[in-house]
Amino acid sequence: MSSEGARVWLIPDGFIPEESSGSQESHEAICVLNTSAEEARLSISFYFEDREPVKDVEAIVPPERTRHIRTDRLGGAEIPRGVPYAIRVESNVPVVVQCSRMDTTQAALSLMTAMAHPVER
Amino acid sequence: MSSEGARVWLIPDGFIPEESSGSQESHEAICVLNTSAEEARLSISFYFEDREPVKDVEAIVPPERTRHIRTDRLGGAEIPRGVPYAIRVESNVPVVVQCSRMDTTQAALSLMTAMAHPVER
Amino acid sequence: MSSEGARVWLIPDGFIPEESSGSQESHEAICVLNTSAEEARLSISFYFEDREPVKDVEAIVPPERTRHIRTDRLGGAEIPRGVPYAIRVESNVPVVVQCSRMDTTQAALSLMTAMAHPVER
Amino acid sequence: MSSEGARVWLIPDGFIPEESSGSQESHEAICVLNTSAEEARLSISFYFEDREPVKDVEAIVPPERTRHIRTDRLGGAEIPRGVPYAIRVESNVPVVVQCSRMDTTQAALSLMTAMAHPVER
Repeated sequence: MSSEGARVWLIPDGFIPEESSGSQESHEAICVLNTSAEEARLSISFYFEDREPVKDVEAIVPPERTRHIRTDRLGGAEIPRGVPYAIRVESNVPVVVQCSRMDTTQAALSLMTAMAHPVER
Repeated sequence: MSSEGARVWLIPDGFIPEESSGSQESHEAICVLNTSAEEARLSISFYFEDREPVKDVEAIVPPERTRHIRTDRLGGAEIPRGVPYAIRVESNVPVVVQCSRMDTTQAALSLMTAMAHPVER
Repeated sequence: MSSEGARVWLIPDGFIPEESSGSQESHEAICVLNTSAEEARLSISFYFEDREPVKDVEAIVPPERTRHIRTDRLGGAEIPRGVPYAIRVESNVPVVVQCSRMDTTQAALSLMTAMAHPVER
Repeated sequence: MSSEGARVWLIPDGFIPEESSGSQESHEAICVLNTSAEEARLSISFYFEDREPVKDVEAIVPPERTRHIRTDRLGGAEIPRGVPYAIRVESNVPVVVQCSRMDTTQAALSLMTAMAHPVER
């Protein structure tokens, strides 16, 4: 059950809405599953339209655990709201990455999700 | 028409919302399609952020059938609401797996879906 | 530019909601893109949880055209509303298939989409 | 970190809703991530159900940047609202492409997204 997934994942559509309504805050989460027996050490980079990327934000996923990492609560790096961005996740062991958005700009919430694109190498 | 899909599928973003509104209950479904002439015997495992995985929940998909398995009605295993989780589906024959969420926390429902990530092996 | 995509595509999560509200009717569409210079002749099959599949519903996508095929307007085959189903699309030439749902059961509409899973062969 | 992604991407389900409500306009965006050190020169084609494709709309993604390209603000080419279409993106260097829709036809917005289908070649 080792080696499920890939070591690099890419997500072109990142966007944290500026506004929220109701009980749920607009946010995005990078969801990572590590089915291996080893700790996954992630290095996450964020790309923008008109500024330099923010690289090497670190995160850990313990063996046989998932982590849903909110991009507005990274601790250290700060991703601006209302700005298009993109995400690259690199891991020392194979993992699987999916990215989801909750948007509550207008009354009632909306969700979207996509499996990230794996890079084989 | 045998052997369509893969034997292992991974879904990092699982979450059953705690609240519902209107006529529709918030829920998630693991949707499986078995186009083969053989019964598919599934073993489903659930991973969490801060506890041991729940492994080997069993389900059957007859030949040339689909099943949309709600994760809040597994019978036996219980997935807590309001907690991030992830899913691993293993099958004895190739199948295809897609996971969808309905969220009715705020008035009006919202849907999201993603094809699971197949593991080639 | 010939031969873009695959000849067989699978979609486990099909469901046409029974109810609608507002100006938009709840529906699903099988969206097909044919970038080739040849006509694509599709054979679409529908799988259910507890009945025999409906096979070989035919559709045509002309060269360099897209078609968004509503599953509630197939002409001939009838997919029941409110029942889980799954879809298999086979084409004589490579195409790309994506499936989307609009759900207006509760006030305000909701959308979800997924690229179908391609079968290499 | 060069060569992440693919050079051709296909998106069968394009549709720009005719109506909007609230503060958000209904729209679609082709989201592209270029992690390479080279400028990505894109050639985007749009396919329809009953008319000739619009080919070779150009766009640039600088090195280590993302661009979220709204299909209702292409400058030059004009994609009609309320009409099914499909998208083909070709790039001189490998990139990753995801397509998302915001639909605010009925009160409250709805989102959907899918990673485009990569063509290996």
